[in-house]
Amino acid sequence: MTVIAASVDERLRLVKDAAREIGLLDSGRKSVLLHAISDALEASSTEIVAANALDLERGRHDAIGEALLDRLRLDEKRVSALAAAVRDVAGLPDPVGRVLDSRTLPNGLSLEKVAVPFGVVGSIYEARPNVTVDIASLALRSGNAVVLRGGSAAQSTNARLVQIMRDALASQGVSPEAIQSVDDFGRDGAKALMNARGLVDVLVPRGSAGLIETVVTESTVPVIETGAGVVHIYLDATARVDWAHDIVLNAKTQRPSVCNAVETVLVHRTAADRLLPELLASLDLAGVTVHGDDETRAHDSRVVPATDDDWSREYGTLDLAVRVVDDLDHALAHIRRYSTHHTESIITDDPEAADRFLAEVDSAVVLVNASTRFTDGGEFGFGAEVGISTQKLHARGPMGLAELTSTKWLGRGDGQVRA
Amino acid sequence: MTVIAASVDERLRLVKDAAREIGLLDSGRKSVLLHAISDALEASSTEIVAANALDLERGRHDAIGEALLDRLRLDEKRVSALAAAVRDVAGLPDPVGRVLDSRTLPNGLSLEKVAVPFGVVGSIYEARPNVTVDIASLALRSGNAVVLRGGSAAQSTNARLVQIMRDALASQGVSPEAIQSVDDFGRDGAKALMNARGLVDVLVPRGSAGLIETVVTESTVPVIETGAGVVHIYLDATARVDWAHDIVLNAKTQRPSVCNAVETVLVHRTAADRLLPELLASLDLAGVTVHGDDETRAHDSRVVPATDDDWSREYGTLDLAVRVVDDLDHALAHIRRYSTHHTESIITDDPEAADRFLAEVDSAVVLVNASTRFTDGGEFGFGAEVGISTQKLHARGPMGLAELTSTKWLGRGDGQVRA
Repeated sequence: MTVIAASVDERLRLVKDAAREIGLLDSGRKSVLLHAISDALEASSTEIVAANALDLERGRHDAIGEALLDRLRLDEKRVSALAAAVRDVAGLPDPVGRVLDSRTLPNGLSLEKVAVPFGVVGSIYEARPNVTVDIASLALRSGNAVVLRGGSAAQSTNARLVQIMRDALASQGVSPEAIQSVDDFGRDGAKALMNARGLVDVLVPRGSAGLIETVVTESTVPVIETGAGVVHIYLDATARVDWAHDIVLNAKTQRPSVCNAVETVLVHRTAADRLLPELLASLDLAGVTVHGDDETRAHDSRVVPATDDDWSREYGTLDLAVRVVDDLDHALAHIRRYSTHHTESIITDDPEAADRFLAEVDSAVVLVNASTRFTDGGEFGFGAEVGISTQKLHARGPMGLAELTSTKWLGRGDGQVRA
Repeated sequence: MTVIAASVDERLRLVKDAAREIGLLDSGRKSVLLHAISDALEASSTEIVAANALDLERGRHDAIGEALLDRLRLDEKRVSALAAAVRDVAGLPDPVGRVLDSRTLPNGLSLEKVAVPFGVVGSIYEARPNVTVDIASLALRSGNAVVLRGGSAAQSTNARLVQIMRDALASQGVSPEAIQSVDDFGRDGAKALMNARGLVDVLVPRGSAGLIETVVTESTVPVIETGAGVVHIYLDATARVDWAHDIVLNAKTQRPSVCNAVETVLVHRTAADRLLPELLASLDLAGVTVHGDDETRAHDSRVVPATDDDWSREYGTLDLAVRVVDDLDHALAHIRRYSTHHTESIITDDPEAADRFLAEVDSAVVLVNASTRFTDGGEFGFGAEVGISTQKLHARGPMGLAELTSTKWLGRGDGQVRA
């Protein structure tokens, strides 16, 4: 039985109530729910694609552009992949109940710190409708209820996906209110979500830098900031030519639209002659437009002049800023100024430079001689990724299921009082 | 050399710069700094007490009341205790550098998740000037710089304490900017601190519920909510008379002003006749005013009538709300409605009731047959306490030094690129 909520606050209270039920389910039961959701998605493929067609049509009418249309699109194959991803999440270890610390006080009081669900996880996100299913399944696997606010471009698809998942919960005798959307409340839905302190336990925004900034500054609910990546690779004086070349090419061109793609390459002045000519030629061959400072441009006439703006841009495209720096200190100062604290990598054969870079760069992931594209929950072996946190509180870097749990101290005594 | 900051933002930038220096100090060096601070406090006892006398005089003039005056007061003995506490912090294990996770990817890329300092820890707090030294020493021990905004009632004392600590850092060749106060900027200082995203990494408010609420709702810097405690003890049907009696008396009267003191006792109806008469008599003897529902009042004529307000009050005094409930479900529902998610305890001989209470009560610390007064970093064996978090993000319950650290993934490769 689904209760129709008259107001967004009422709906949030329904989610909170449902969270109690979800939080007490054991691991096997949660797997069963996720398999039911996966099966339902697979079985409803045709209607999901039909709902998606409405969004695509509106998108085309609104001329949102081919890239956005592609993000929005769900065909039978993508729905099938979505259902498979939910099955994968069902198979992940349950993060709830892990004993993270334990101690017995001198008076015999025994204490255990255990992982518990947050309760209600909220997410505000943009175009891609697969986030709807991703976040819902990750939240359920970790014992949480979820309340979603998707992009208006995907509203028909999201409404369908949420309804299918809710029906799947109900078919298993679990309150469908554990998966909620506030899309139908428009901007008021997002606003209510950001101010639902006491009803929503944590809010994870996913999308553009603008969206994340809005949520971070306006929300009174605790937020985990994700995603923005002005990512740097620094080619040190001793960088190997082949590693420098292959890593920069990989980090820029393998998938330029994602947050762990490199946006700025810094080159030690004494290595510029050795590294830049071949690197710039390969980047050009790969279709990359290089925005360089004067010294970089001296190596290749195809390099366009970089403006100050380029150092802080997250292109998300086949564009790359390149700057020649005096030394490691200069590189560190540049990174300090422009980095969004996501991922940076140094290419070097000098262990001291590597250690300084690891110690002094203040980012979620700091690498030596490896592509920045490895900052990813899947690559790290988490089995799933909630997002990549660029803040320091609670979670930093790729977030797996464990990051969707809080903790609780449980104490068992036999009459202890404090002296 | 101390730079004089013209604006609060400029001062915050100085703290951020100093945080880099502090973050790279090894454990031994940080201990030396803390010992220098401790020695300086001891040596400056007379001038601290003199500065404190100015605050006390102003407090008396403003008629702030004897309880607040006592919180504000620093005599030679209290200064000595403060210096000793700093020495204790110097002896605590350094939380920085702990390896919290590690993995090697199939391609050979080796990853380590290590504990790192937050960077800049901010605190906004009220009357007690010892918080100034507590927070500064805990921040330093965990490799953080600190920016403080104390209560205006303690401004002369705090200014003196901050100056002494800064001079101690400078005497050791470390930037004094690592310990900063924005007290002299008045309300603008607090406001700047709450909006210093990018300069301040985490904000820990300590003080009244009103102060914490303001910081939580107004801050764009991530906040750790601490302290408010509407704490419950539930006396179950099978509660032992002696444990029920001793635990409630201890939890209410041992130190009524603190956040882990009990504020509401719930009694299972079938146990009321067995437990209440002796308990109410002892509470009366101990000077406790009991605010009870009708059934409680039927047991003792000295019980005053409870209003709905009483269930959500954090008295902080020798007052206690007592309510008779139908059963465990009723108790859980009451706690759900009125608890501030700090600490609750059940007194019972029924293992099933104990397990349900532990599983279903959504608080930082949930106890069976023990006094709520144990929710304390010192009691838990942390050696120090930053505060007691009542939120679910990052830290929950008593916070030790580990909770003043974030994490960073360090990766070492040899040319790995993503396939």
